[in-house]
Formats: sequence, structure tokens, C-alpha cells
Amino acid sequence: MKFSSARLTEQVAAVLTAWGLPPDLVGTTAEVMVEADLAGIDSHGMSMLPTYETLLRRGGLDVTARPTVAQQGPVTALIDAGGGFGHPAAVMAMELALDKAGCMGVGLVCVRRSHHFGATGYYASLAAQRCMVGLVTTSARTVCVSPTRGAQPRLPTNPLAFAAPAGRNRPFLLDMSTSTVAINKVKVYDYHGRPLPDGWVLDGSGAPIRDAQLAMRCIRAGERGGLAPLGGTAEMASHKGYGLGLMVQILSATLAGAGLAASPAASGESDGPADIGHFFLAIDPQSFRDKGAFEADLDEAIDLMHATLPIDPELPVLVPGDPEAASREERRRDGVPVPTALLRQLRGVCERAGAPYLLHD
Amino acid sequence: MKFSSARLTEQVAAVLTAWGLPPDLVGTTAEVMVEADLAGIDSHGMSMLPTYETLLRRGGLDVTARPTVAQQGPVTALIDAGGGFGHPAAVMAMELALDKAGCMGVGLVCVRRSHHFGATGYYASLAAQRCMVGLVTTSARTVCVSPTRGAQPRLPTNPLAFAAPAGRNRPFLLDMSTSTVAINKVKVYDYHGRPLPDGWVLDGSGAPIRDAQLAMRCIRAGERGGLAPLGGTAEMASHKGYGLGLMVQILSATLAGAGLAASPAASGESDGPADIGHFFLAIDPQSFRDKGAFEADLDEAIDLMHATLPIDPELPVLVPGDPEAASREERRRDGVPVPTALLRQLRGVCERAGAPYLLHD
Repeated sequence: MKFSSARLTEQVAAVLTAWGLPPDLVGTTAEVMVEADLAGIDSHGMSMLPTYETLLRRGGLDVTARPTVAQQGPVTALIDAGGGFGHPAAVMAMELALDKAGCMGVGLVCVRRSHHFGATGYYASLAAQRCMVGLVTTSARTVCVSPTRGAQPRLPTNPLAFAAPAGRNRPFLLDMSTSTVAINKVKVYDYHGRPLPDGWVLDGSGAPIRDAQLAMRCIRAGERGGLAPLGGTAEMASHKGYGLGLMVQILSATLAGAGLAASPAASGESDGPADIGHFFLAIDPQSFRDKGAFEADLDEAIDLMHATLPIDPELPVLVPGDPEAASREERRRDGVPVPTALLRQLRGVCERAGAPYLLHD
Repeated sequence: MKFSSARLTEQVAAVLTAWGLPPDLVGTTAEVMVEADLAGIDSHGMSMLPTYETLLRRGGLDVTARPTVAQQGPVTALIDAGGGFGHPAAVMAMELALDKAGCMGVGLVCVRRSHHFGATGYYASLAAQRCMVGLVTTSARTVCVSPTRGAQPRLPTNPLAFAAPAGRNRPFLLDMSTSTVAINKVKVYDYHGRPLPDGWVLDGSGAPIRDAQLAMRCIRAGERGGLAPLGGTAEMASHKGYGLGLMVQILSATLAGAGLAASPAASGESDGPADIGHFFLAIDPQSFRDKGAFEADLDEAIDLMHATLPIDPELPVLVPGDPEAASREERRRDGVPVPTALLRQLRGVCERAGAPYLLHD
């Protein structure tokens, strides 16, 4: 079944309102979630509501919290999300970084005591919309990635996103986890009973796990092996993906004074409040270039990539952001598909929250 | 044969002086080069002198150039390297970024009209030495990496480096190219006649090239196939490595107004002056944390990584920067090994430059 993004936003807003999110934060939070669904990043949009409900019930999420600026200077700021939703804190942080970059050329805002904030790329793309370059990183709760040479998981999938404005092309938008694949991708292979490519998930001896069901059990147990860092194996330079995961950890958590999710005690199964950190950097290209020159040069680079001779003529060379833009176009036109299983879950969430269920035919 | 770093620095300085590098830039440039050799990054240190000589002879490198600040504000600056060596321009840029970060919390300096600057990690580590976080990226001349799905090389190996200060541990230092491996690693396999792992180098049909000699020929021709981005294959998420390569290109070249090395005309074989761009970001953790808190938290993260149960007890889990630090300790103690073939080349460089040759027994 397919729904318009307007209807989905209304549904998400109804749930958030029933949970007690301050009314002025509801619109932003709902929009960020549904934008992930529009972009085709189904794992980070509306489908997170049941997870948020579980956190809420366990006392790990303070829905009534309002993000506040804990300290700031002309270029930097630290935001305390107060243990509430990551989305409104992150929008506030990126907008503050962009305001500062507008005045000073660069703005850098860190967030601590936050939660899951959805798709990292959303916040980077806010920068490109305002003709700025944006770099966003976040730590996370679930420890599932094993360091190169390691038999134990130590890091979350720690994503980073980078956006830059172009002229006649759509903005450049890279949004990636620092593991080879996200947990969700393994889950999809498990649903379909497909064997995993070598190097997505490794066991405690460093050998690839090919059975997707076994792989999901290994990831959930969180004791031995886990997702491989980008690169896959030591031979394929997984130390680079591992290093990037640590870089994201340092920028997001160490700089903001957020928790070390790498600590086993803070794993996804913990009931305590999360302490996730985020990092938002905004750069004004006009600090370095004449107006429009950056965008023109980026157009040239994007055009050159698109004009690359493809290996398979049916599969043209893409630029980061192309798949999300194609999904957005299609889903704005035809609606966002929502699987029946998720609809059933959402109906339950609505009932327990006392919110109206709006996703009938 | 092994030499002390002092002797090597003297030798490099003698060559640079004979070439006509302004005397006050000789010490810095020689030190940056020999520091790469100490750190075990042999491909980016002294062994570059013959390549620089070729550039020089072809008129592609203006040794007499002096980097100048083209424009600046309280947080940002743009440096024009004037077509000279990248090393002194890069040291000037990172130090300026660190000065600005000391005042404003963040400093961002871009460099255009520059050249090869050696090992990217050197400049990031300058930040950690001053208790700051540093992020450094650079574009490059040689187009050798094929985009995911692409049959043609379009990008250089575009490296990035990230450093952060710890307390009782040595600084965190990630220094990586955004391809799976550097050209030099393929060259070493070629020397030894060893077959390449699948996914280091791909041909124009996307199939792995296993014969290292064939792989080097493919990379040098620069027409079809090339080095794979980090990830290796599309299935192993090489679109992430490709995306990171483009991110580095945008930060280093597009932001600074440097050339698009991705353009085939600007490939390594071109005789014209290079127009390489660099990016130097410095962040003062004390904009967000109390003095020492960042370093203490990073110590905790580093200790946790080092304490990870290893797959093989003989190969403990490392943190980025460990291999370089181990090399530095060993080579400071025992000297830097220089292969006979390189010594012979260096003797030729000295003779042609009219510089004394100092690397006798």
C-alpha cells in the first residue's frame, strides 16, 4: 500500500503529539522522518516508530525534552538535547551552524545527550539548500562492528554525510555508514534467505558468515564477530573503514562529551538513557570563491562523473545523492510504499499511544 | 643501507637548496619529507625527489615560489602556493588554521595552485601536537581510480588524514587514501611477482586484474579500468569509497578553486603546471569540553580498542597511528633503510643539481 508523504507526516505527527512531544517540535520531527521514507531510506524513517516506542516505555527517551544551547561562541556551539528525540536537536544544530557560517565562514555545532536522529544525509542536505557545504556525523547505540583484527564488536555503524551545492545539477549528497553494510541490509537478506557476500559479516575467527540468519544472530548477540568495517577484510583495507568509524566516534561523541557507545555496557540492549552525540559542520564556499564559482566547478565534476563510460550501458555511473533523488521523485509522484507488516505495527503504536490511525486504504 | 634521519634531512636540504628553494623554506620541506620516511611511508618521503626533479625539468614546478595568503578572515584563509612545493604551503596553512582555532575555536585554511605535499598525516598530526583536532585532505595529479560502475579512471587516490590528541596514549592519527590501495602497493606486488587480491585493480569490464604487471600497465595507461575505490566492488559498497574520493575532491579542489584533476587532460602524464588543492581544518576541543576531558575520553576509547580480543593473539588490535609510531621508534633507533636502487637515483639527482651527495657508507 502506498501513501502520500502528507498523509504519512500527519500520521507520524499524531503519534508524536500523543506521546507528548512539545507541539512546536512535532512538525520538524515528523518531516525529518518522512523525508527519509521519501528518499528510500526506509530503515531510518517511519519504521523507527516502534523502536522509539520501546525506548519510551523503558524510560530511555524523554519525549518532553527540549534541546537547549549549553554554550556558544561566534563559530561554535554545544547543544544539550536533554535525552529527547535527536531530530529536532539536529535540525536546531545544523541551522545554528549554517547561521554561524553565514557570518563567519564556518559554523560548528556539536550535540550531546541525544538520541537516534534518522537519516544523517537529511541534515547535510540542509546545508546545500542554503548554498553551503555540510559535514554531519553521529555516534549510535548499537555496538555491532568489529575492528580490523578484532574478534569482538566494538563500534556502531557510525555514519557520516557530506553535502555540497551545485548549479544546474542537484546537490552532491553522500550519506554512508562506515561499515560495509548496515544491519538492515543483512536483515533483508535474512528475510529472503539469500546467502551473504563474503566480508559483510565476520565471525569471531575472522571468517565470513554466509548464512544471513546466522549472521543476524551473531550481530544481535554482540559478543563475537560482527559487521565488517568498510573494506570488508584486512586484505581489502578494512582498517580504513575501521579508522573512519573511529573518526566519526571522536567527532560525534568525544568532541561533544557524549557517551562512548563503543563500551559494551552501552550496547543496544541497555535500558538506560542513550547518550548519543552528533557533529554539524557548515562551510560557506564564498569564504574562498567568488559567488557561483564553487557551484560551477562542482557541476563540471558531476558532469564528468556522469559522462564516465559505464561497464554496463544499462547501469550508468552515478554521483552520491542520485539514488535518493530518484526515489524522492518517484515517491512524491506515486506515493510511499508501506509494507503490511509495518502498517500492523503502526496501528498497534497508535492504539497504545491513543493516537488516531490514519493509514486506512 | 641505513641512515640517521639527521643525515637524510641534510641530504634532502642540500638538493632543495641546489634547486633554488628559498632558504627559509628548505628546513621545513626537508623535515616533512624525512618525517614520512621515519613513519614508514616510504612512497611519500625522500623517494619523491626524482619525481620532483622530472616536474622541475619540465617546467611544472616553480621551486622559487613562496606561498602567500591570498585572502583571510578571522576563521578562514586561502593560500596561494604559487605553483611551488606543497610542503611549505601546507605547513603554513595548517599552522594558520591552528592559530585561528586557538582564537575562534575553529580554523579552516584552503590552498590552491599547489603541488604534491608528501604524507597527508603529517599535517593532521601538527594539530594533535597543539592539542587540537585536525582534518586534512588533498587532491592529486594522477587520475587512476574508476568510479563504481565506471570503465574509465576519473579520480586520483585523494587521501584524507584525521588526528586527535589523547592523554596517556599517543595521538589518534588516521591517514588513508580513498582507494582500496595506493598505486605503490600494486608496484610492490609487481616487483615481487605476487598475484593481486581480487578487487584492488579492475579492468574496463569491472573484472579483477590479478597479474600485478598487467595491473600496473592498466593504471599507467589511464584509459580503461584502474584502482578500485575503498570497498573494492559494488557488492562490497565501493560506492562509499568512490563517494569519499569525491568528497575529498570537493573539499580540496572545488573549495580552494584548484583544478579538477578528475579531468583526463590533467592526468599524471601532463606536462603543464599542476593545480592541486589542499584543505586544513583545525578544531579546539576546549570550545566544547573542559580542559583535558576530550583527551581523557579519547584515552578510554583507544584503551578499549587495544583491549579488544584479537582474532590472532600474535596480531593485536591497533588504533590508527600505531603502525607509523612503531616505525618511527624503530627508525629513530636503528636508522632509516634506503634501498640501493633509490640511493643510485639520489646520486644522479645530486649530480644533476650540483648538490653534494651525502649518503656514502
